[in-house]
Amino acid sequence: MFEAAELGHKVSKEEYAQEEPKLREALLKAQYALLAAPKFPVIVIIGGVDGAGKGETVNLLNEWMDPRHIITCAFGDPSDEEAERPHMWRFWRALPPKGRIGILFGSWYTAPIVDRVLKRSGPSEFLRDIDDVKHFERMLVAEGAMILKFWFHLSKSAQKQRLDALEKDPRTRWRVTALDRERFKIYDRFRNISETALRETSTGEAPWIIVEGVDARYRSLLVGRTLLEGLQHRLAGTKPPLPAPAPLEPRIDKRNVLNSLDYTQKLTDKEYRAQLEKYQGRLALHSRKPKFRKRSLILVFEGQDAAGKGSTIRRITGALDARYYGITPVAAPTEEERAQPYLWRFWRHLPRLGRVTIFDRSWYGRVLVERVEKFAHEADWMRAYHEINQFEEEMVEHGAIVLKFWMAITKEEQLKRFRLREKTSFKAFKITEEDWRNRKKWDDYERAVCDMVERTSTEAAPWNLIPANDKLFARIQVLRTICEALDKNL
Amino acid sequence: MFEAAELGHKVSKEEYAQEEPKLREALLKAQYALLAAPKFPVIVIIGGVDGAGKGETVNLLNEWMDPRHIITCAFGDPSDEEAERPHMWRFWRALPPKGRIGILFGSWYTAPIVDRVLKRSGPSEFLRDIDDVKHFERMLVAEGAMILKFWFHLSKSAQKQRLDALEKDPRTRWRVTALDRERFKIYDRFRNISETALRETSTGEAPWIIVEGVDARYRSLLVGRTLLEGLQHRLAGTKPPLPAPAPLEPRIDKRNVLNSLDYTQKLTDKEYRAQLEKYQGRLALHSRKPKFRKRSLILVFEGQDAAGKGSTIRRITGALDARYYGITPVAAPTEEERAQPYLWRFWRHLPRLGRVTIFDRSWYGRVLVERVEKFAHEADWMRAYHEINQFEEEMVEHGAIVLKFWMAITKEEQLKRFRLREKTSFKAFKITEEDWRNRKKWDDYERAVCDMVERTSTEAAPWNLIPANDKLFARIQVLRTICEALDKNL
Repeated sequence: MFEAAELGHKVSKEEYAQEEPKLREALLKAQYALLAAPKFPVIVIIGGVDGAGKGETVNLLNEWMDPRHIITCAFGDPSDEEAERPHMWRFWRALPPKGRIGILFGSWYTAPIVDRVLKRSGPSEFLRDIDDVKHFERMLVAEGAMILKFWFHLSKSAQKQRLDALEKDPRTRWRVTALDRERFKIYDRFRNISETALRETSTGEAPWIIVEGVDARYRSLLVGRTLLEGLQHRLAGTKPPLPAPAPLEPRIDKRNVLNSLDYTQKLTDKEYRAQLEKYQGRLALHSRKPKFRKRSLILVFEGQDAAGKGSTIRRITGALDARYYGITPVAAPTEEERAQPYLWRFWRHLPRLGRVTIFDRSWYGRVLVERVEKFAHEADWMRAYHEINQFEEEMVEHGAIVLKFWMAITKEEQLKRFRLREKTSFKAFKITEEDWRNRKKWDDYERAVCDMVERTSTEAAPWNLIPANDKLFARIQVLRTICEALDKNL
Repeated sequence: MFEAAELGHKVSKEEYAQEEPKLREALLKAQYALLAAPKFPVIVIIGGVDGAGKGETVNLLNEWMDPRHIITCAFGDPSDEEAERPHMWRFWRALPPKGRIGILFGSWYTAPIVDRVLKRSGPSEFLRDIDDVKHFERMLVAEGAMILKFWFHLSKSAQKQRLDALEKDPRTRWRVTALDRERFKIYDRFRNISETALRETSTGEAPWIIVEGVDARYRSLLVGRTLLEGLQHRLAGTKPPLPAPAPLEPRIDKRNVLNSLDYTQKLTDKEYRAQLEKYQGRLALHSRKPKFRKRSLILVFEGQDAAGKGSTIRRITGALDARYYGITPVAAPTEEERAQPYLWRFWRHLPRLGRVTIFDRSWYGRVLVERVEKFAHEADWMRAYHEINQFEEEMVEHGAIVLKFWMAITKEEQLKRFRLREKTSFKAFKITEEDWRNRKKWDDYERAVCDMVERTSTEAAPWNLIPANDKLFARIQVLRTICEALDKNL
């Protein structure tokens, strides 16, 4: 989930100077429109790691808008008044009424996450706490609230750099406490637990927006514009009890998980042949291990048209025993499949233990082609992110190893391949009018892929983004990823 | 939750003979309408205790409708095919497609409940399992499914009678196995755990219908008519993604939790005075115990107009230290309260530890007056049952003792009291036009009370139904209930 917030997003001084006044004015205008016709409350939750700009952002929002109509609450240890009542009492107290914006600095997420990080709660209790949060927010949404949740993130190295920099400067050294260093030690644990909490509670109506906290200008614009778009969307939009999903967060700079890949990586023919032999051998061995009889392997392939999914899959199956694998190509659903919930057609193909299933395209069609082509309603593909995460979690819990590959090529490379296909008689069948049509929607698909990675790349089933401009490099990369996952799991 | 299914519901042979053919015909017609325009699947879940007619009802539904278009699945131990896949796989396999009715005999509820009863799972794991079920059903509903869940119930004594009767008859003795007797021993545990599961998963869109299993004619008509009304409602109704809540189950006989009370119970003045002194003394002592400093007491009073709530409350406060109790009379919400989620105005009045709060009318207004007078949308009061249960659970978890009283009088008694109030000058202020208006809706209110008791009388916070035709009897009954709860808890 945090991939997109570790890319080094940045906004220049000039751009910020140009954007900020417009944003402030629009925010103020939206705030007054909300106040003039108080139809719903706005709840803004600020969470995340230390040093990522949470406090600064809270201050900024109060500066940008009219602070008299913002209710800002920071939650530390409960007061005695609060401790003597059920733990949600303090949050009920802090809810903004209709027409107001409430900023909750710290929230009902703090205790469940911290309790789990410090092992005061077990894994089931933690998930139970998170479910309570989910029900609470669902109630708020049903009562009409607009909820936006911002998670301020720093990568491990960015966090380390920050602490080191503070410590080096004698004027700021005092700001790094023993507690900071203590917390840094459990960075990974905190990250994993937060990820679960965020993933479980990022719904269409109350989404999490992950904010990369390094660059102050970037994070300020991201939070400001998301809030603005949310407000405008809701002020213009349908009324409860069925609020439209919140809009997805705006893109602030051009950087994303796809265009940050290094597409220049290459292998020579000779390197390729050597490595192919090596990894295919390892894969063959792994799949024949007795331990594999208690597991299964599920491989998901997605990617732009002509990115080389098919040829990569063939390099995998080349190493496997045909009795133990199956390839499930996914196209438009059949009539029988359309009469069932959309995940049904994938459930039916899940492998038994000891088997491998390769999905050539997959359940992600819901949030890719069905979203872009508007085959699915917004509410339906928005809820799909969560349902998909749940689905994959069930596989993993039952012993499956789930690996997801996005085969990524650049727009130029795709054009080259399309042209080549048209020219090569035995490849011409692989290029259709539809491919050209899809290509025209390149940007929409790119956006959909970035959202998909942000919302469905989980600890249990992460996305592997494979730069595939060089086919040889891509194939080896995929094979290596599979082998390493098997090394780890078997 | 099971109160209404322990009343000895019965349908006579004659009535059944008259109703059954009509019901069959209508069911068949609805089934064919569904089939002709297959817009949604119907999922019927059959669960509950043994011997309550589950199997018979499944057979009957297949007999009443066209079995070729019904998909009946019974779930025993998983096959090896099933065991080698995530545990939900077998249920995905069994889902009916659009246009069909699927009857699931045993379901995704069985494993969570049985695992918890046999202590194979802990309390948090159990709740987590139940939450997974909830998400799964929510997905099915979002995908368009209509879900009806029937829970076949036998009271402990009815279950015992059944087993004894089978054992006494040499022709049926073989049917009572050691397992049956074993299960009977854990009846209470099974009941409590099932109650939690049902309460957590009885939603507006996928409600549980509790079926008293003793009388075969009653239970058959109840299931048949509920299914019929659900089908008709949905066939005529709005389409996904926002299905209307399922209709509440029909009433098959005249018996309900209110008219089954014994209203003839009385106390003489002398008895009353003696007992009042006794219980007020006990209450006073309890409330001054050091242990009470770590608890709180929340009393909820609801009842028909003129049922004697006020005078009963005065008998309670008479025993308490004024510094430590508060009375919260609940009327129409203020402007400030209307700008917040509806439970907000009750949260703000929750007592600190060591205190008593008495609610004279309460959050139940949502499912009583707001429902009957249509101040709240159906979807809003339907979700309120669950939110209220959650709310009370949070109080109890934090140490509150929550006692809810429904002061029940008969329609005749109310008329007598209204007339008396009109005649007595110092009581005339207590009777208004509104009281007479409410009285005209007696049956609607009765229905709302019965649904409320069925859906919100929980292990943690049960409803106490107090026959209050005799005021003296009612007051003592309430005081005694409070004292006994404090005996148990302090």
